[in-house]
Amino acid sequence: MTFHASIDIMPLPALLDPQGKAVSSNMKHVGLPEISGVRIGKHITLSIEAADQATAEEKVREACEKLLANTIMEQYSFTVTAVETA
Amino acid sequence: MTFHASIDIMPLPALLDPQGKAVSSNMKHVGLPEISGVRIGKHITLSIEAADQATAEEKVREACEKLLANTIMEQYSFTVTAVETA
Repeated sequence: MTFHASIDIMPLPALLDPQGKAVSSNMKHVGLPEISGVRIGKHITLSIEAADQATAEEKVREACEKLLANTIMEQYSFTVTAVETA
Repeated sequence: MTFHASIDIMPLPALLDPQGKAVSSNMKHVGLPEISGVRIGKHITLSIEAADQATAEEKVREACEKLLANTIMEQYSFTVTAVETA
């Protein structure tokens, strides 16, 4: 069975996000002073072959821990959905 | 009124994503051959001051077009939610 995962990886709230800070301060230069508190992370989508939803979620967690996220500086969250097969 | 936006910016489906490709092919080296089709984009969160939901969404769209996304190579999607104020 094929599952589709959508993963968000964000800098930990306690850490500074210089890239987000730079974008925040540039918002006023493009006429958008209403926008603040920009934080920038990664969005990752992928496919997983697994027997069931629980196994697929376990695989995604493993991928995040081992390869996708740096858990010292980042936190991750994800959703896993089954893909309809014809 | 304060709104919170959550934005996903992904490479267009028609374009190659070399970073995602590299991560895909490394999945088997960390014992996860079940994972394929990795695509990597950006996840951005920010705050907006706006009178109502429609205005907030318009501001986020403008921020994506002007600053956050490169619409030649990337597509964006977002959700805007009102933040409860005490």
